[in-house]
Amino acid sequence: MKYVRFVADRTEHTGTWEDHHVTASGKRWQLSEVRLLAPCSPGKIVCVGRNYADHVAEMGSTLPKEPLLFFKPPSAVLGPEGTIELPKQSARVEFEGELAVVVGRRCRNVPRESAGEVIWGYTLLNDVTARDLQRADGQWARAKGFDTFAPIGPCIASGLDAANLRLRTRRNGRLAQDSDTCNMVFDVPALIEYISAAFTLEEGDVIGTGTPSGVGPLEDGDSIEIDIEEIGVLRNSVVRARSTHQI
Amino acid sequence: MKYVRFVADRTEHTGTWEDHHVTASGKRWQLSEVRLLAPCSPGKIVCVGRNYADHVAEMGSTLPKEPLLFFKPPSAVLGPEGTIELPKQSARVEFEGELAVVVGRRCRNVPRESAGEVIWGYTLLNDVTARDLQRADGQWARAKGFDTFAPIGPCIASGLDAANLRLRTRRNGRLAQDSDTCNMVFDVPALIEYISAAFTLEEGDVIGTGTPSGVGPLEDGDSIEIDIEEIGVLRNSVVRARSTHQI
Repeated sequence: MKYVRFVADRTEHTGTWEDHHVTASGKRWQLSEVRLLAPCSPGKIVCVGRNYADHVAEMGSTLPKEPLLFFKPPSAVLGPEGTIELPKQSARVEFEGELAVVVGRRCRNVPRESAGEVIWGYTLLNDVTARDLQRADGQWARAKGFDTFAPIGPCIASGLDAANLRLRTRRNGRLAQDSDTCNMVFDVPALIEYISAAFTLEEGDVIGTGTPSGVGPLEDGDSIEIDIEEIGVLRNSVVRARSTHQI
Repeated sequence: MKYVRFVADRTEHTGTWEDHHVTASGKRWQLSEVRLLAPCSPGKIVCVGRNYADHVAEMGSTLPKEPLLFFKPPSAVLGPEGTIELPKQSARVEFEGELAVVVGRRCRNVPRESAGEVIWGYTLLNDVTARDLQRADGQWARAKGFDTFAPIGPCIASGLDAANLRLRTRRNGRLAQDSDTCNMVFDVPALIEYISAAFTLEEGDVIGTGTPSGVGPLEDGDSIEIDIEEIGVLRNSVVRARSTHQI
């Protein structure tokens, strides 16, 4: 099943997606008639760094002995079809296509054998990163936490084995990342065990599982697409933030 | 005005605190009759590292040129009177007493001159830290993000000038930290400008402003008190987590 949130008839709906239509509360729309939103509202986005050996190599880093965790804030969430804004503070913003887990229920200390019980489903995350600030700041909170730096979607796909899914990222239609979730250093059950040993996870929380090699820059006017088989395509446009509007 | 959240008559209330009583919806209780909760439910806790020169020196670190940001997750929030749990993963958990800002309204790109307009008030934060894991992990998300590692309270004090408040921490009644908020490297308006240039802040979000020197260990059975004049005392007990109960 594919769960979606969307706006139709000026109202927000939670429903399901099949082929070219979405359904909510017994009503049905063509996909082209609705605007998809991020499929969940995570209270917490826990991400994992350096979880594909080829990406670790391209960054000149070393493989961690344990999962390397960091947070993206809820204020960074962007829906599918939303626009990533390149902040004035950075001269080098990059995409990172990832498989993401959506947590299905409140949980703590989940052994890897039981990880499946706490997974609602899978979605896609673009772990957008200001690469220059990531290096300069040391802590990654700001570089990975700007508004719009956590595009999530297009749906939550449940009932899926995520151990072996092809993951591709295309920038302006051109293939940039092409890997498989089987190449993760720490697989999803291991990540859930490790993360839930530190933090209580809540329904709707998102876990980013790391990006493979092939990351690259995002520039004004770009279109960036992450595509994971059996889940869908997360497509976002990119603009350079032109002003620092105050709200 | 001091805002509080508390449980009385088995119900959760939002109200105000004056002297030895609290008031909510026209009803009044003695402080001793209620159980105080964390005064807000932050969607985001943005913390600042290395913001007092004396603490930077005791850590053997260098003063940052810009505020050094990191996040604590909402799942780490603990109320006043709550119990900090020392996780089995760490052999060295430490207290860090801090002034914290509570955001009063949704805002972005706030110039320092206008910072006062987006501040609801001030509270206290214990930025509990697994010091060994902070060093081992590199990224601080886990070391500072365990459940119960963000005690907040006892109240939100509004209408306050926080530029010059004495901050003390007592472990088991013994003075450990004794400084003044005037010793911050980056003051509250500068922090709000810097942070809101990266992230949209929401009502109830919390900003931890860093800890002065004198940090030290927390051990099973400890009582740890942070005391900032004109706001109040945040007092928590400490236990070693005895099991890894699964929820």
